[in-house]
Amino acid sequence: MSVSDVQRGRLVKAPENFIDPQGVRQVFAEARTGRRDFLRNAFATAAAAGSGAALAQSNPVPTEGGDPHILNLPAHTTGLGQPVVTDGYGKPSRFEANVQRRPSPGLTQTTQASVSFAPLQSLFGIVTPSGLHFERHHQGWWDVDPSKHRLMVNGSDEKMVKAPKVFTMDELMRLPSVSRFHFIECGANTGMEWGNVAVPTCQYSHGMISCSEFTGVPLKTVLDLCGVDYKRGRYVLAEGADGSSMTRTIPMEMVESGEVLLAYGQNGEMLRPENGYPLRLVVPGVQGVSWVKYLRRIEVGDQPYGAKDEVLHYVDLMPDGRHRQYTSIQECKSVVTTPSGGQVMLDKGFYNISGLAWSGRGKVRRVDVSVDGGASWRTARLETPVMSKCLTRFNLDWVWDGKPALIQSRATDDTGYVQPTYRQLRAVRGSRSIYHNNSIQTWLVQESGEVKNVQLS
Amino acid sequence: MSVSDVQRGRLVKAPENFIDPQGVRQVFAEARTGRRDFLRNAFATAAAAGSGAALAQSNPVPTEGGDPHILNLPAHTTGLGQPVVTDGYGKPSRFEANVQRRPSPGLTQTTQASVSFAPLQSLFGIVTPSGLHFERHHQGWWDVDPSKHRLMVNGSDEKMVKAPKVFTMDELMRLPSVSRFHFIECGANTGMEWGNVAVPTCQYSHGMISCSEFTGVPLKTVLDLCGVDYKRGRYVLAEGADGSSMTRTIPMEMVESGEVLLAYGQNGEMLRPENGYPLRLVVPGVQGVSWVKYLRRIEVGDQPYGAKDEVLHYVDLMPDGRHRQYTSIQECKSVVTTPSGGQVMLDKGFYNISGLAWSGRGKVRRVDVSVDGGASWRTARLETPVMSKCLTRFNLDWVWDGKPALIQSRATDDTGYVQPTYRQLRAVRGSRSIYHNNSIQTWLVQESGEVKNVQLS
Repeated sequence: MSVSDVQRGRLVKAPENFIDPQGVRQVFAEARTGRRDFLRNAFATAAAAGSGAALAQSNPVPTEGGDPHILNLPAHTTGLGQPVVTDGYGKPSRFEANVQRRPSPGLTQTTQASVSFAPLQSLFGIVTPSGLHFERHHQGWWDVDPSKHRLMVNGSDEKMVKAPKVFTMDELMRLPSVSRFHFIECGANTGMEWGNVAVPTCQYSHGMISCSEFTGVPLKTVLDLCGVDYKRGRYVLAEGADGSSMTRTIPMEMVESGEVLLAYGQNGEMLRPENGYPLRLVVPGVQGVSWVKYLRRIEVGDQPYGAKDEVLHYVDLMPDGRHRQYTSIQECKSVVTTPSGGQVMLDKGFYNISGLAWSGRGKVRRVDVSVDGGASWRTARLETPVMSKCLTRFNLDWVWDGKPALIQSRATDDTGYVQPTYRQLRAVRGSRSIYHNNSIQTWLVQESGEVKNVQLS
Repeated sequence: MSVSDVQRGRLVKAPENFIDPQGVRQVFAEARTGRRDFLRNAFATAAAAGSGAALAQSNPVPTEGGDPHILNLPAHTTGLGQPVVTDGYGKPSRFEANVQRRPSPGLTQTTQASVSFAPLQSLFGIVTPSGLHFERHHQGWWDVDPSKHRLMVNGSDEKMVKAPKVFTMDELMRLPSVSRFHFIECGANTGMEWGNVAVPTCQYSHGMISCSEFTGVPLKTVLDLCGVDYKRGRYVLAEGADGSSMTRTIPMEMVESGEVLLAYGQNGEMLRPENGYPLRLVVPGVQGVSWVKYLRRIEVGDQPYGAKDEVLHYVDLMPDGRHRQYTSIQECKSVVTTPSGGQVMLDKGFYNISGLAWSGRGKVRRVDVSVDGGASWRTARLETPVMSKCLTRFNLDWVWDGKPALIQSRATDDTGYVQPTYRQLRAVRGSRSIYHNNSIQTWLVQESGEVKNVQLS
């Protein structure tokens, strides 16, 4: 069984998938017993016989030398490969078939008003491949015909918007565009943990977050074109065209900052159907429900709209029985993705602790990592670029001594806000929320090497 | 016919694909004749009847009002959509089926030693979706089993590397990793233009470039582990495992900078098979041939290796009959992707000129755009982040007056180097090269609105 394999969580789902356990045991055995000697001999030979011999020896299944034609070379070294564009739009390797977004069985009553989680434990860097982007649908997804799609911009009364307009996609795509990297996180991400349900893997605990390069037109540009009365019009209602008729209120200050986009591009290509093709609102730093998909209408008004998904859902039940509403900014948060729940570490020694940090308020300033449940902390390396309202990848060297370890990460953003512990968060918010859990995650590495989700009281 | 559609070059290949021409003609006619009035009336109604009526009117095919149940609403507004994870790994919209990488018919004699070009005219931002990444194979591509793949590190003699090693993928993936955005460009990109062959679209003229977030281990880390003698070992030979046995020399200074990576991750997931799964060398700023795919061996030596693909190929035939060799750094270059060859502009008025700039020496400092063949220039907006040895997206507002226009972009990098004109480049390099053409591209917008590739003498 393999280390990076279990680190990346594949074996949790399909042990047969990535690597042949027998083969890897053999490699480890060779490393301990004879491989070095074999190598040294190989190089002695190579030095004597020239680079040809060394080349032959580099094959993973070398024979005793001699005629190179009888070497047991793999097919890909001796044969002609596949032609260009075999399959049209490219796909991952067959050995990666287990890296998938996954629904959580039983979490929702229907598969249309449901969620699929991104496989964070298998991802690198900060870009989420669009084929693995988490999904949250309120009434299923559609592949909407862009030639028939329209965006209407209107006011809540006749004077709010001087020149209401209906835009075709063509008209929108002629306007000045910008491209920016941002994360999108569902407000309910990590929601199960409020109830002390330690879901087993970071795919299920934190996988309702993804990060993409979005391209589109600043909403401000379009509102300017329509002649919005910004003095009165301090709120925007965004409305989607799918059956859920999702509507959300966006404060006009966010729009005026230029950050809110009418986006059609995601990771270099058009949005995917599951993500709102051909047009979605991008509201950086704000929970995903406000990033309205299949966006068909923007209304400008003078007060929040109190839509069902901001009054009844996506609110936080406080200890005193009242609801926090309009708490849409995703606060600073982080999670270690390797090692994480469901993974298995096979031996002591060096590991690269890796994870993701983000803040809906701006940039991540710093991430500290603990392997002793918060007793001591070391500061992780942040991969660049560190961007505002975007995922930041962190890495930290670690030598595991084989004893139980409690692994945590704690992010600080550039406002100075520090990601809280569960205890700190619950002291303020109680334990009856579903949404907006940004507290520190703990993974327990057991002596067996198995990693599990635990909650420190 | 639609504007953004032709801007993005889809109609060149499949006019029926993106948008119904009849439908869009109707929209333009409505905009000129009656749509505004319709809208104004609609809002008068809405203001009187409340937001429900306005909502109904936002439908692109509204009827005369009355019972909302008889409105001609699209299926996606009234029905239940698709469930989560319908198809496993996600795919683009069916309306995007024409956005594909494409081989150039007749360019190569076989489809295995061949090229497919990325559809630059249809892409946004800087990330190239891995499913659209350009391909260049020397003997076809393979889906190599990562459990059997090995990387050997050795020296050209016994003292060059103290402890030669063979690494499994697992061993490599435990080491400290970094994630970085870089472009990769084939040295032959834009090669046809040397011979005054104005290939019709920017997919074919410039489509051997792509840009990704790569994750992997700095090669320096692995060489350190193996105990390289950096005083003598000033060159590295990288060797691939596929049938072409690609070998390329990398100067040790590049490795020592920490920029050269043993990469397994690309855009958040594992490398794609066409791009060298499970391991490829990433050599930022250097032409793609040095980014050896299916990487199986690194040898450290004291001189360049003079491999066939650096002595016979990827060299530049100079006017005096001699070859420039080891000219592997991709100099500063840019191209306007919208509007570009093969696209059609249907009317005068506002357009967003958009394109890509890059430099193998560092960051893009500035991009100037001309619409009069270089007589006058305006400085474009650069989308952030601007990263070293990475694509940079630029945008510039333009109002087309309907007259012929010659559109060019000229990039300057942070060394102060300015992208040359064809005349300037040919004055030094002659016209018999295949590789390393970084001169300024010109697109002619004709009065008909058709855009074509032209070369200014």
